[in-house]
Amino acid sequence: MNGLFITIEGADGSGKSTQIDLLNTYLASNNYDVLLTREPGGTVISEVIREIILDKAYMEMCDMTETLLYAAARAQHVQQLIKPALEQNKIVICDRYVDSSLVYQGIGRGLGVEAVSVINRYATGGLEPDLTILLNLQADEGLKRKKEQRDLDRLELQRSNFYKKVGEGFLALSRKESKRIKVVNATKSIEEVHQEILSYVQKYLADH
Amino acid sequence: MNGLFITIEGADGSGKSTQIDLLNTYLASNNYDVLLTREPGGTVISEVIREIILDKAYMEMCDMTETLLYAAARAQHVQQLIKPALEQNKIVICDRYVDSSLVYQGIGRGLGVEAVSVINRYATGGLEPDLTILLNLQADEGLKRKKEQRDLDRLELQRSNFYKKVGEGFLALSRKESKRIKVVNATKSIEEVHQEILSYVQKYLADH
Repeated sequence: MNGLFITIEGADGSGKSTQIDLLNTYLASNNYDVLLTREPGGTVISEVIREIILDKAYMEMCDMTETLLYAAARAQHVQQLIKPALEQNKIVICDRYVDSSLVYQGIGRGLGVEAVSVINRYATGGLEPDLTILLNLQADEGLKRKKEQRDLDRLELQRSNFYKKVGEGFLALSRKESKRIKVVNATKSIEEVHQEILSYVQKYLADH
Repeated sequence: MNGLFITIEGADGSGKSTQIDLLNTYLASNNYDVLLTREPGGTVISEVIREIILDKAYMEMCDMTETLLYAAARAQHVQQLIKPALEQNKIVICDRYVDSSLVYQGIGRGLGVEAVSVINRYATGGLEPDLTILLNLQADEGLKRKKEQRDLDRLELQRSNFYKKVGEGFLALSRKESKRIKVVNATKSIEEVHQEILSYVQKYLADH
């Protein structure tokens, strides 16, 4: 595969959507063929699975059920959308990917990184991002920003302790995979964050 | 756990529903506390997952997506319904369980028994049936019976070669786990099949 697979990770409210838009605009205006997508979601089947995961009606959902649903949505997403785009030499920018599952379900929910990792290796057929941007924010800050925006969905209703574990989990992961995962301070201005992300992407494109 | 966990396996059209009804009637009239359930399904969350799996609108569903959706539905089913019932000393009779995934996805779809087995060990937390009845039928016979009954759903639309592999897969599994899986010839009369199933259940109850 010759495309470039970029994932954007970070807690809710860390500014992922804004930064993805800016990155997409930059790449498109420089004539790169870009596919923007998100998880859970990205295909019709993945989106219906996403609806089940986020539905407040299903508060009794077990952690392992949630983990397997994310993995199912991801399997479809990878095979139907991401892999074909990479084979067509596109730059794929994906809002969340396996790292989110490792951190939210593996660490946040306490299922263990190993279990979630094994399940996701089957789900993705081993497809890993070339470059991951981690938008790092103090845990409480992310939830606060999000609350100001709109009603919280099922996952967002979880206690803030969970968000703290998630923030620390992402950082731990970035230390373990420092070559792939680039940590960006998301409390900086939108333009500063954008420029920092751009520098990582441009460096990757120059090196490959 | 002190209950008894019985699963009924076999190709579509092998008479599982009929035999489950007869077994349930017998056990209930002998004052056993029975929980009847089925896969995929059994809980509200598992049933909405079941709808996605069986929906003809999603013909593009990948084999791994299907496998992970079955596992997700099962994780919820085990934790929310089956385990609590067994802890209350009930006899749980379940129409299909992990063996169906091993055979349909592992062998039929060609994902491999090992991959499907690993995923399902996570999904079930390792909960295995005490006793499994395999209703064995010539592959083509099952599909023929089913076709006469009603419209075929997405899974049933698959080619009959698939059903042949499934039939052989179930038998191979029963040879590997001969202590747990009892093979019953489903081409015999309903009453004969019922009596044979009863003999296995009664023997298990007498021995435990």
